[in-house]
Amino acid sequence: MAGAEIERLIQLLARLPGLGPRSARRAALHLLKRKDALLAPLAQALEQAGTAVQPCPECGNLDTVSPCAVCTDPRRDRTSICVVEEVADLWALERASVFHGLYHVLGGKLSALDGVGPDDLSIPKLVERAGNGVVSEVILATSATVDGQTTAHYITDRLAETGVTVSRLAHGVPVGGELDYLDDGTLGAALNARRPF
Amino acid sequence: MAGAEIERLIQLLARLPGLGPRSARRAALHLLKRKDALLAPLAQALEQAGTAVQPCPECGNLDTVSPCAVCTDPRRDRTSICVVEEVADLWALERASVFHGLYHVLGGKLSALDGVGPDDLSIPKLVERAGNGVVSEVILATSATVDGQTTAHYITDRLAETGVTVSRLAHGVPVGGELDYLDDGTLGAALNARRPF
Repeated sequence: MAGAEIERLIQLLARLPGLGPRSARRAALHLLKRKDALLAPLAQALEQAGTAVQPCPECGNLDTVSPCAVCTDPRRDRTSICVVEEVADLWALERASVFHGLYHVLGGKLSALDGVGPDDLSIPKLVERAGNGVVSEVILATSATVDGQTTAHYITDRLAETGVTVSRLAHGVPVGGELDYLDDGTLGAALNARRPF
Repeated sequence: MAGAEIERLIQLLARLPGLGPRSARRAALHLLKRKDALLAPLAQALEQAGTAVQPCPECGNLDTVSPCAVCTDPRRDRTSICVVEEVADLWALERASVFHGLYHVLGGKLSALDGVGPDDLSIPKLVERAGNGVVSEVILATSATVDGQTTAHYITDRLAETGVTVSRLAHGVPVGGELDYLDDGTLGAALNARRPF
């Protein structure tokens, strides 16, 4: 139907999250119809990003400078570290501009089902950073799933020796959320964690 | 938050159909986490496809050979041409293996709203091909929308001078479709075009 080059492009595009075989075909045609405006710039951007972007040796964030812009920013509070599972979580927190300390990207979460053990995550590095004498608090921002909470518990145990305060994000009603649409688990957590008004 | 190279990659990915700003960010992170397995091959595939893939000078199909594999296939019936709006439509018909003649890709459809006139589509080339003495039938497979049908009517007028038979795809109940879920227009068309059983 089409040349091997087109088929290969479709197959690779189909491996992106959010694109299936059908939408990958659409995307490939879209690219081939806009060679100068989109295909060539995208090929170039991929190559440049592939060369320039490296994981930060300190926190695991992805950036073009090493250590990353967050780790080297002198205005950031070096006494607290927020632990997240993925770089995407770090970016989400940065977009919200709600945290001004440092981060630590685990690279995933403990999962017996997926065969992810403590050695697959950057936990030793976190323990090392938490014990450097400057850090006083580690905030666990792992996801509110069974695996995420297991990971949080495991990290709390491992950090016991360092003596830093360990906290986790509050669970409760999302801002703007209607009670009617919330699941039982969230409602229960919100009620248990109720605060004086 | 992230380097300029990452931002540029996200912006370009967001211009693909099916990816918005949020899913483009996810796709970019996915690519950067799999540099050797996905990012580098994709950059290479884009470059190769960009160089190798050309529109067929005869029918407008995209292929790595010129004229395209369909136009040069000796087994194809050269007496009928199926007119489609986009290359994606041609590929859909080829996947279904229901048509064994040649194709003609218009490159769009007439649309007063989008400012697409007859000069923007490859209609003169179609008239030329239809009048070559070999072609006996032109099948209009433009979409069943107002613009698609306007385009079909316009092409029928333009082809009158060549004397070839002009037909269009049947409208009716899709195979596997339930009457209950069909729109009034389709039901009306199916009833009007009823055939003896």
